[in-house]
Amino acid sequence: MVDLTQIMDNEVFMAFASYATIILSKMMLMSATTAFYRMTRKVFANPEDCVTFGKGENAKKYLRTDDRVERVRRAHLNDLENIVPFLGIGLLYSLSGPDLSTAILHFRLFVGARIYHTISYLTPLPQPNRGLSFFIGYGVTLSMAYRLLKNKLYL
Amino acid sequence: MVDLTQIMDNEVFMAFASYATIILSKMMLMSATTAFYRMTRKVFANPEDCVTFGKGENAKKYLRTDDRVERVRRAHLNDLENIVPFLGIGLLYSLSGPDLSTAILHFRLFVGARIYHTISYLTPLPQPNRGLSFFIGYGVTLSMAYRLLKNKLYL
Amino acid sequence: MVDLTQIMDNEVFMAFASYATIILSKMMLMSATTAFYRMTRKVFANPEDCVTFGKGENAKKYLRTDDRVERVRRAHLNDLENIVPFLGIGLLYSLSGPDLSTAILHFRLFVGARIYHTISYLTPLPQPNRGLSFFIGYGVTLSMAYRLLKNKLYL
Repeated sequence: MVDLTQIMDNEVFMAFASYATIILSKMMLMSATTAFYRMTRKVFANPEDCVTFGKGENAKKYLRTDDRVERVRRAHLNDLENIVPFLGIGLLYSLSGPDLSTAILHFRLFVGARIYHTISYLTPLPQPNRGLSFFIGYGVTLSMAYRLLKNKLYL
Repeated sequence: MVDLTQIMDNEVFMAFASYATIILSKMMLMSATTAFYRMTRKVFANPEDCVTFGKGENAKKYLRTDDRVERVRRAHLNDLENIVPFLGIGLLYSLSGPDLSTAILHFRLFVGARIYHTISYLTPLPQPNRGLSFFIGYGVTLSMAYRLLKNKLYL
Repeated sequence: MVDLTQIMDNEVFMAFASYATIILSKMMLMSATTAFYRMTRKVFANPEDCVTFGKGENAKKYLRTDDRVERVRRAHLNDLENIVPFLGIGLLYSLSGPDLSTAILHFRLFVGARIYHTISYLTPLPQPNRGLSFFIGYGVTLSMAYRLLKNKLYL
């Protein structure tokens, strides 16, 4: 049996694993945040979720949308749309033998930008806070994609 | 050329590959389910999708939303939000050299909980069926993230 | 330290890395397309995004939905729903030692079909253009899942 743990001895890969796990855990917090606002504001999407608050017509009034809940859901979807490319491209980039300090700079910028994006979205902070943090994360992922395709294109 | 097939000789990695493939195939079924309900209930989101049912104003009446279709779409999005972290964290966790039986317990719990989540959502079963299955999957992913960061943190 | 760059010497893996990076970059273009339509059509989801167009009640009129923007967002979500399984299953399939030409055929068909899907969705082209391109991508992913589970099932 191969000792796969030696892959984790690679410093770039270990750094990628740490930053990817942190940003995915942050993304998972968005589910908990949505659930928190749904409970405290009594705003539900499914009839079976609000039976504890009343029966029949009385329960139906909780089937509604709420600005706060929709804001968290948009932030969550934006996370998905940006973290999925980071995971895919970042994993392949990590395996392509990049310079350690360049790689860590990419990972740190992305994770920092996405955490700031969430803060900007949920507070909400005035623009261009959210816009800038979005574009930093976007640019980091494109920079990794460019380096990967420049060195390792095989079609 | 490296014989990459030896990675697949690692039992934890093979188990992860099997469970990940199964749960991703299940997630893909949600697309087919949405398409099925859209066709049988004649509920469409795009004008070009309902031209076979009528022309002009007559076709526009099929551009609507439907409780059943929206329910499947919410289940699908919830899958995406939870399966993406499982894939990313689970892959890195599998490479970090965990105990085989612990790893398989994590994978089985996650896949079982997500399948039960879909059944609870689409039937729908009364709460807390869906809520509990969500939290089991959520907890399994966080448990893998915790073990990964505890052993291999590199920032 | 392990020389991980040797993984990239594997031709199937290099091909997967190239096609995955291309299709993820294409998916990222959807964010830019949404932002482009939101700016040019002045259609926003958040109050803080439209303050440059007016204050108070005057700004609120830009908080609306628009057919064109919603179409891009549906195409983006459909990308996420289909590219995530391709990434997960495709990565594991690439590591399972498939025949090079078979693997490249799978990757090319998927990437071609998803690019055509986006063109069909955004133009929009009449059906079944979009439907067919969806099913080709869907079938390619299921074909990789089938080969993976047939050879390497470990539960």
